[in-house]
Amino acid sequence: MKISARNVFEGQVVAIKEGPVSAEVDIVLPTGETLVAAITEGSVHSLGLRPGLSVMAFVKAPLVLLVTDTAGWRFSARNQLAGTVSQVQRGAVNASVQVRLAGGAEISAIITHGAVDELALAPGLPVTALFKAGSVLLGVKDA
Amino acid sequence: MKISARNVFEGQVVAIKEGPVSAEVDIVLPTGETLVAAITEGSVHSLGLRPGLSVMAFVKAPLVLLVTDTAGWRFSARNQLAGTVSQVQRGAVNASVQVRLAGGAEISAIITHGAVDELALAPGLPVTALFKAGSVLLGVKDA
Amino acid sequence: MKISARNVFEGQVVAIKEGPVSAEVDIVLPTGETLVAAITEGSVHSLGLRPGLSVMAFVKAPLVLLVTDTAGWRFSARNQLAGTVSQVQRGAVNASVQVRLAGGAEISAIITHGAVDELALAPGLPVTALFKAGSVLLGVKDA
Repeated sequence: MKISARNVFEGQVVAIKEGPVSAEVDIVLPTGETLVAAITEGSVHSLGLRPGLSVMAFVKAPLVLLVTDTAGWRFSARNQLAGTVSQVQRGAVNASVQVRLAGGAEISAIITHGAVDELALAPGLPVTALFKAGSVLLGVKDA
Repeated sequence: MKISARNVFEGQVVAIKEGPVSAEVDIVLPTGETLVAAITEGSVHSLGLRPGLSVMAFVKAPLVLLVTDTAGWRFSARNQLAGTVSQVQRGAVNASVQVRLAGGAEISAIITHGAVDELALAPGLPVTALFKAGSVLLGVKDA
Repeated sequence: MKISARNVFEGQVVAIKEGPVSAEVDIVLPTGETLVAAITEGSVHSLGLRPGLSVMAFVKAPLVLLVTDTAGWRFSARNQLAGTVSQVQRGAVNASVQVRLAGGAEISAIITHGAVDELALAPGLPVTALFKAGSVLLGVKDA
């Protein structure tokens, strides 16, 4: 399986909170971070999700926000991963920014050119990657 | 009405599953595919959605993922449309990829340059387009 | 705090509608517009959201749709802001479009090149910016 999403995380389901339409799935990564995915209740059943199951979590790079100087701030995004910028590649309108997380994983964000300048993003800068639970898509491989 | 979303599907509501905050709307297309939209419960009422109603479904191209070699895999995305790549247009950071679905409709995905290479996307390649129910926006024309 | 999202709105919480998993938060801006954010129920509590609290709302530009000639149409997006195009900046695949809202605020959308042409977007054109409640991320500064 090959997928266009630039962010692919392998992990294990640790908790599922179900509602009538939506569900929230907590996934722990081998590097220790926890991701939260909001998917439909129907998908919990069609994928057979349960604590302990191995899953892949996918997040498109344009859905990732980068934030700096966060002291004193809290954010609604259920996924908040701290790291340092490892690479910045600029295009005409957008730029692709790689962030290396504390545990060694990498996360990719596509943000505007203007944001790269405003945040002064450059290799080595500490940054937090934010993405909403609703931005996470899950995949399961049949046993 | 003209909209910036590259993916515009005309269809008919076939089912609505309502929760306290979120709702899930199933829409069947003339080409036979079913789309699922997750919208707020408030929008179900403000749009007067009901089975049988004609609606337009809009999906921004950056919210579409492409996946190949899916044998043995299942995904949480409620929208999974199989087709073949019909066109690839590359930019500096992103590329726009057109996929022709089995029923004849086209779907557009914006993915990174790197993903085009990794998936070896080229006209004729079989591919599945995935997008979350939450990525679908609905429009209704007054009678 | 500096954030990569091109759309940053300061406002005040006016209402919160809670469900078992999801919650909907209404935020009024100083310029009079109301924004709606869909976040997880868990985030309502971790941020301590309550009516009257000052919050920042963030929306990534690729999640904003632009629509023209909307007479007779209704949309499911909980956020629908009318304005006029103030600037169009084209890249290879995408373009960045600035819209000045009635109250004076600006909103930024990243859309495809093709959409700019199809909607004939140019400074002065009336346009409505649409984005889903699920596309809004909230931030709160500790008192």
